[in-house]
This record gives sequence, structure tokens and C-alpha cells, in this order.
Amino acid sequence: MPPLQEFLVRQERLERMVGEKDAYIFFSPRAIFYLSGCALSQTERPVVFIHVPGKENILFIPRMELEHAEHTVQGCRVVCYREYPDTVHPMIHLQRLLNNLHLSEGIVAADSDGYSSAWGYRGPALSELCQQMRIQWIPFAVSELRMIKSEYEMLLMRESAKWANFEHALLKEYTKAGKTEIEICQRASSETVGVMLRALGPKYRMSGMDRDGARAVFRGQVGKNSAFPHAVVINATLHRGDSVVTGVNAYIQGYFTEMERVMFVGEPSKEQVKFYELALEAQQIALSVIKPGVTCSTVDAEMYRFYKERGLEKYWRHHSGHSIGQEGHEAPFFDIGDSTILQPGMCMSVEPGIYVEGLGGFRVSDTIYITEKGVECLTYFSKNLEDIICE
Amino acid sequence: MPPLQEFLVRQERLERMVGEKDAYIFFSPRAIFYLSGCALSQTERPVVFIHVPGKENILFIPRMELEHAEHTVQGCRVVCYREYPDTVHPMIHLQRLLNNLHLSEGIVAADSDGYSSAWGYRGPALSELCQQMRIQWIPFAVSELRMIKSEYEMLLMRESAKWANFEHALLKEYTKAGKTEIEICQRASSETVGVMLRALGPKYRMSGMDRDGARAVFRGQVGKNSAFPHAVVINATLHRGDSVVTGVNAYIQGYFTEMERVMFVGEPSKEQVKFYELALEAQQIALSVIKPGVTCSTVDAEMYRFYKERGLEKYWRHHSGHSIGQEGHEAPFFDIGDSTILQPGMCMSVEPGIYVEGLGGFRVSDTIYITEKGVECLTYFSKNLEDIICE
Repeated sequence: MPPLQEFLVRQERLERMVGEKDAYIFFSPRAIFYLSGCALSQTERPVVFIHVPGKENILFIPRMELEHAEHTVQGCRVVCYREYPDTVHPMIHLQRLLNNLHLSEGIVAADSDGYSSAWGYRGPALSELCQQMRIQWIPFAVSELRMIKSEYEMLLMRESAKWANFEHALLKEYTKAGKTEIEICQRASSETVGVMLRALGPKYRMSGMDRDGARAVFRGQVGKNSAFPHAVVINATLHRGDSVVTGVNAYIQGYFTEMERVMFVGEPSKEQVKFYELALEAQQIALSVIKPGVTCSTVDAEMYRFYKERGLEKYWRHHSGHSIGQEGHEAPFFDIGDSTILQPGMCMSVEPGIYVEGLGGFRVSDTIYITEKGVECLTYFSKNLEDIICE
Repeated sequence: MPPLQEFLVRQERLERMVGEKDAYIFFSPRAIFYLSGCALSQTERPVVFIHVPGKENILFIPRMELEHAEHTVQGCRVVCYREYPDTVHPMIHLQRLLNNLHLSEGIVAADSDGYSSAWGYRGPALSELCQQMRIQWIPFAVSELRMIKSEYEMLLMRESAKWANFEHALLKEYTKAGKTEIEICQRASSETVGVMLRALGPKYRMSGMDRDGARAVFRGQVGKNSAFPHAVVINATLHRGDSVVTGVNAYIQGYFTEMERVMFVGEPSKEQVKFYELALEAQQIALSVIKPGVTCSTVDAEMYRFYKERGLEKYWRHHSGHSIGQEGHEAPFFDIGDSTILQPGMCMSVEPGIYVEGLGGFRVSDTIYITEKGVECLTYFSKNLEDIICE
């Protein structure tokens, strides 16, 4: 759990970004996690976070989570409703709470007009229930705050990169002809979690959000099937001559880096090596362009130029990276249409890919941290050909 | 993958439920999976399913998924856009497609006003782009269709219940004083996946949706901490005298049942046995009330009566069950405020719980299938005291 100070700083940054309000209201579990550290299970029961600047933070939760929240969340007054849907709907209880706080006629910012329809939830909109409330909609405010990582978040990202590297080393050891995708990946994943638990002890906390532990995947990208950039697990048996596209994640308090490599089962063919080296070259070119002040689109434009110059256009499938921290992909994107300006504090994946039907996919992904001076690579498993051949 | 016929029937049911339209448009990945079997990875890139009755089904996807969709999805014409956000936004491509189909001025039903903001997505609303389109919003139509399971879905539910039972048998074997929560649960989970793979062979397909494989959990409900109904994993070490609340899931083509048990590490105390038996009695009472024609609220009202009569109100934390199939919880709920009428074909969890601070939580959950005649219990791990004591 981050120190309380971390959340106070995040709440201040929110106020500065959005401007002065009587309150800031959040229904999104990820926004609530970011602003308060609250990581209760997401169900049909809404959880709402209300930040009243200079006064208090309120966490509005179902009765069943009361003791749990009191034990695990810092710096919030906890208010609970009985159940969902119940004879009095949670949103009616929320309306009463907002009335009592004199916010029903106030000026507020809110991330959405009610809880999302996760796990069968239905309910009235905030704007229906509080018709006198003047609401500024800020659906993307927290995702924008999250683009710039704090020192504390960078501790978690670096810790994640280390365990991802450990996991990839295991993946390399266990990848052999005759083994199946799932047994290789499960073994690397579960051994990594076992080692992390013993090494980190009480420092290791599951986040309670959707991603926990550690996970190594081929996601079905084995042999010819690796030409599907986002294949799904097929439990392929590995054969000599196959290439695979790997992915490893280790979750530290809800944060993780992304690292993907190509590996070869036995000696690769000349053609496989050629496309692998082109994928590496593409990544190097992207990395050479990235620095503060450059737009995301500039990086992707360089990639379009590279594919065109080398006659690789028919092997192109996707843009060349994305922000990362808590979700698999986050905005902004290294995409020709994304004009976001790169700033120090951002973490991005860099992962142009080359997909050759009938042969395989070639994608190398690293997570970088943008500093005042340029780029620091957080992930570091070897990309040398001799280190990614599995015997 | 279900037979194509299964999807055609689902699409017909949709038409009958919603009424005649020129087209039915879906942005929700779960609705798309249900109606088409398409289980592409969910990212920042929207996937849209358009059902044009009597004519065709269209799957609108990013370029990177083209070959993958063509290999894995049946009965759909695949149309792709280059990337998100790109210089021409995917929603603009969708607008053009709808124009070409003469749907821009048509009468349609749609589940939402655009893709959700998953993984950093942003974009214009459907209703902005197609201002002449007459749109009926049907955000809950597919979740209502899903309430009644088909024969094919019941094959998957029964298969899931069997592997969940296997998984729980392992959980029972591996639960011992001195072991940690995560090592016990990981071992049971990964061995179950290994056995399922070997037993089911090519019949075993990962669904590509958010849940795959098999998963055994204590979710942190170990010893006193089990009094938090939805605790999160704390990697507790088990001690003699602890009770635990288990949960096992085995995913079959995206479907699963829910089964939860109480287990005791060593001989339980008299007090533990007393509350365990009360939890069993509560579940029995709920089961005795459930039949077609009864409302969900009636079942939960019986539970309120039970807690009150027995003086257990302070141990009450949540309603007594929910629909299940693809998501952890689904509507309807066994809740005092849910007036849904039970019908043959529904699958529901039945799981009243008793939570005693300082002692532990006592919750037994089974998945039932509602038939013309009454109730069939799909999950079946023993609830006898001698079978849930771990030595």
C-alpha cells in the first residue's frame, strides 16, 4: 500500500487539472484505486469515491465491505448502504448522502453519470437524481493524471521489470520442442509467483484489482499462428523450427511493465533471422526518435517510413506502442493519429511488429521511461540471437 | 466453438425480444461474444458486430485481427479499419460502413452509444455520427437473453461443474497447516488445467474472453480474515483452527459454475461447527423456496426471515445469490429488491453467508439449474463435516 501522502498528492494534482469544485465524484474502480488506494472487488454493488477538497474523502460502499474497507483503506470516511438492488437502491442512498453534504446543488466534477453496468448492475443516473447539481464530466481526468508516474509508482514499475525478467529467464529454460504452450507458461508463471512471495514477504501485496501475481504467455503465438498479433491461447505443442512471441508480466501493487520477445525452438532459418533482425531494427529506430517534446505520432510516422522503405508494408499490422502502468494498454499511443506530446515521467511500450503469414510473427516489446534527457529502458531481457534460441 | 446454429438461434431470440429493426449494433465485447462467438482480445481498438436480419452479420475489426477473425469466427463478413486512433478514426470508418449499408437513416437497436473507454479508447458517439439514424437503446438485451441457457450452454455448465469438483478435491488434499494461501491455490489451479488439457484435448478451447483455465481461490478468506466476504488475497499462512472459504472455477469455452465451501484446518471448534451448520441450513431453506414462477425477492425475503428468527442479523452481509454463466455475477439477484420471476433455463448461485468478526466467515455456494419441475444442483462437492476437515 502506498503511503497516504501519495494519494494526497494525486488528489491535489486532480484539483489543479480540473479546477476548483465543491467535490469530485468517481464511479470507475480504476479511478478510485488511483485516488484512494481502495481495491475492493468489483461486483454489481457500486463503490463511489467523493473527494471534498479541504474537508474529507468519502468512500461509499456496500455493507458487506465495511470492515474490509476500514481495515485496508487510509484517509477516507466510509459510508455504507445495505445491498444492491435492495428495496432502496444504492443510488438513492448516494443521493441522500450528497444532499446531506449540501452537494446536490453544488458544482462538482464526475467521471461518469453513474456506476457502469458491470456484473448485472442497473441504476438511475447521477444527473437524474441530482438535477440541481452542476456537473462537469471528467471521464478521462484520472487516465491523464496516470500518464505521468510518481517516484513511488516508478519504484513499483522497476520492481515489476525485475520479476518479469526472472519470469522470462524461466520461460527460456522451459521452452522446448514437445512441450505445450500452457504447461510452459503455467510453470514459469507459478514459479515466479512462488519466488516473489518468498523474496518480497510482507512487501508483496496483491492489489485486489484485476491483475495479480505474475503471468507468462505465448497467447497462442506459436509457429505459424504467431502471425496473428493478438492470437488467443490454443495450447499448441511446440515443434523444432517454431518461433514464439512471449509476454511476461509481474504485478506489484497493481503496476506492471510489458516485455515481449521472440524465441526460437531450435536453430532459426535464415528467413526467420531476417525478419527478427528487421523487428529489432524497427524498435531501435523508434527508440532513437523518442524524447520529451516529440509527439507520439512522430514515432509512429518513422515506423510507417521504415516499413515503406524496406518494402514491409504487407507485414504491418498495428501501431508501435502505448502507455503502460496498470492496464494492458493505456493512452497515449505511438500512433500516427495521436498528437500527445511526450513528457518526462511517462512509461511507454515500444513494440513494432512484423507478421509474415505462413512463417510467423516477430515483435519485440520493451517498456521505457521518459526522462528529462531521453529514454531509459526499464525491461532488459537479452535480445541477442544466441540468448533466445531454446534447445 | 459452438455450432453456427447456436448463434443463429441467439440472433433470432434477439430479434423477437427487441422487435423488428433494420439492424442491431453491438459494441460490448461480451454481447459480441454471445451473438457471434467472436472472442478477439479487448484493447483500445473497437470491435463492432452488426446483425442485419435476413441479410448478413458483419464484424468490424482492426486490421491486425483480420486473419485471426477469418480463421476463428463463423458466419460473419469481416470488415476492417487500419488502426486506432489513426488519422481516420475507426468510428469514421464505421460511419462510412453504415452509410454504405443504407443504415445511417435506418431504424436500429444498439447496445451503447459507442465503444467503451477500455484501455485508453476515446471516440465520438454513434448518435453524433449518424444523426438521422433512429436508435433504440438496448443496453441490457443480451444480458436478458443470457439469463436463459440453451442446451449447448448447459453442456458447458455441466462440464465446468465436473472440473470444478476435481479442482476442489485437490484443494482439499493440499490444504494443510503451515502452507500458504497462494501455494495451495496455485497448485490446485495449475494441476486442474493440466488434467483438463489432457482429458479434453482439442475439445478444450480457451475462450479468449477474460476468464480462462481453472482457478481455485481462498481470496484471503483464511481464519479471522474470512469474516470479510470479499477479502482479497493476503497470502496468509494457514494455522490449525482456521476456517477457510474456498472458491473453484473451471472455464469451458467462456462458461463456468460457482462452487464455494467452508473447510477447516484441523478439528473445528463447537462455535465454528454451529455457524457452519447455520450456513448450511440457510442454504437449504433458500433451495426449498426456489422454483419456476417464484420471484428472486421471495427467496431473499426467506433469508431475512431466517437471520431475524435466529438472531443472526448482525452476521448478515449480503444477498443470497445471483445468475451465473460467463461473468462472476450476473443479473438477476436473489435480493429483496429484485422482482425478476424465476424461469426454467436459469442458472443461479445460492450462497447465503454468516460472517462472525474475530471468528470467520461461513458461506456455502452452489450453482443450480432451474427446470420445469424445480431445482437441479449442478455442483456437488460434499458438505459433510468429515469431508471438509483438512489434516
